[in-house]
Amino acid sequence: MKSILLIGQSNMAGRGFLTDVPTIYNENIEMLRNGRWQMMAEPIHFDREVAGVGPAASFASAWLNDYPEEKIGLIPCAEGGSSIAEWADDQLLTRHALSEAKFAMETSELIGILWHQGENDSLNGLHKVYAEKLAAVFAHFRSELGLPELPIIVGELPEFLGKSGFGLSATEYKEINHEIKKVVVETENCYLVSAEGLTANPDGIHIDAVSQRKFGIRYYEAFSKKIDILQPLENEEKQLQKIYARQQTKNEKIYRLSRSFALGELDFQAFMTKFGEISNE
Amino acid sequence: MKSILLIGQSNMAGRGFLTDVPTIYNENIEMLRNGRWQMMAEPIHFDREVAGVGPAASFASAWLNDYPEEKIGLIPCAEGGSSIAEWADDQLLTRHALSEAKFAMETSELIGILWHQGENDSLNGLHKVYAEKLAAVFAHFRSELGLPELPIIVGELPEFLGKSGFGLSATEYKEINHEIKKVVVETENCYLVSAEGLTANPDGIHIDAVSQRKFGIRYYEAFSKKIDILQPLENEEKQLQKIYARQQTKNEKIYRLSRSFALGELDFQAFMTKFGEISNE
Repeated sequence: MKSILLIGQSNMAGRGFLTDVPTIYNENIEMLRNGRWQMMAEPIHFDREVAGVGPAASFASAWLNDYPEEKIGLIPCAEGGSSIAEWADDQLLTRHALSEAKFAMETSELIGILWHQGENDSLNGLHKVYAEKLAAVFAHFRSELGLPELPIIVGELPEFLGKSGFGLSATEYKEINHEIKKVVVETENCYLVSAEGLTANPDGIHIDAVSQRKFGIRYYEAFSKKIDILQPLENEEKQLQKIYARQQTKNEKIYRLSRSFALGELDFQAFMTKFGEISNE
Repeated sequence: MKSILLIGQSNMAGRGFLTDVPTIYNENIEMLRNGRWQMMAEPIHFDREVAGVGPAASFASAWLNDYPEEKIGLIPCAEGGSSIAEWADDQLLTRHALSEAKFAMETSELIGILWHQGENDSLNGLHKVYAEKLAAVFAHFRSELGLPELPIIVGELPEFLGKSGFGLSATEYKEINHEIKKVVVETENCYLVSAEGLTANPDGIHIDAVSQRKFGIRYYEAFSKKIDILQPLENEEKQLQKIYARQQTKNEKIYRLSRSFALGELDFQAFMTKFGEISNE
């Protein structure tokens, strides 16, 4: 089994509304819970009550299209509202994410990091010290994980920042994007993902669910081709439709049926009847 | 700041429906997220998509009634469906829970463990080896945390088991309760909490939200008085009403307002207006 570490701030954790996009269930996508793997269900992160759709579910789905016989596990360690300073070597977020990754590595091969961060540094001239700090984060994670060539995929900050709602304060996001590009260029096995055209939740700071699904496809394109993705992909909508149209397996149907029963949406008799139907398919 | 470790299986993680009971927000109750503290919002656990209300929120609220000037943090490490064997010394659940507790202990004083487990061992004669394993779990946690006298509060399995739905297989819950009592008696600073009268979700295995709130009050009574609670408390409903009737603080109102805005439930203009109103209260 392969695994991917998710770090950064809220747009990596995911704040897209779950009800805005088709759900993704795939028995070959798992997520780390209590140091072990569970079948993925969104929200993958739980850093805040408002956690929702991030880029990881569509990333993992796209990965599985290329490796249909394998499994991929997602390690959710992004933290809403975290600044680059909070990802320094000695910080709790860093030490905790490394600890989670190491638990995951007992039962999987870590093959990449997805990173998205910078909104909290898009003000007060903080961009002047950003590149050095970001490069240090990447070097520290690779070093501590013992994977000096571990691919790191880095999303740009979206263009809707600095304009409304909670995004108003992020006036210097273009400067941060400039620094991000610089670090990506200077770092081996590190690739950039364009945020062009991504749209926001009404709060003006969080990427909406529809755009997060596309962002994940772009992240995977950068990961798989080992190139920077400098603009939207022509086929990202088509790729998503293929993911949504995938036939559910027996295990996935039973998972969803059991979930409905646990939530009191059907009685035991109805559950057993449907369970029998699925089992006999 | 004080903290409490939550371990066991799903009825400690919580599966009560969030919509069945009044919410609990209290800026002096926090929960561990990414190694750090956040204001508590239920579900506190995230082991499964169906995580909901457990005993911890009302436990913490009752604690705060006795220590109104302090803060309490909850460390969620229970795992749905876990057997006692999965809590042995070398198991991932155990090692991960210890790791989480140690992150929490960097910034808090751990003052107790709430434990609830046994449904997965209530069949096939597993009760014959249960007591020894349970005692070993308690000893191992205390030893690894360096707190040999750490109070451990242990809830009984509920009487509705073995009768319907997913609870049908747990036919030997009375035998497990017998073993639990034995271990509690033989362990210093360990107290029992009655599950008498607790009622189930429609799935027949999970304690419903209304009963989980009461269970938490009983857990706190055992913790604070250092006694076994062998039957329902006369005033548990009254204690809960006091918790629900508590006046929200400015910070809690702002948290809830920000949450509503983040979820798109009101626009920025309305958010700013209400924010101003709360700030000027």
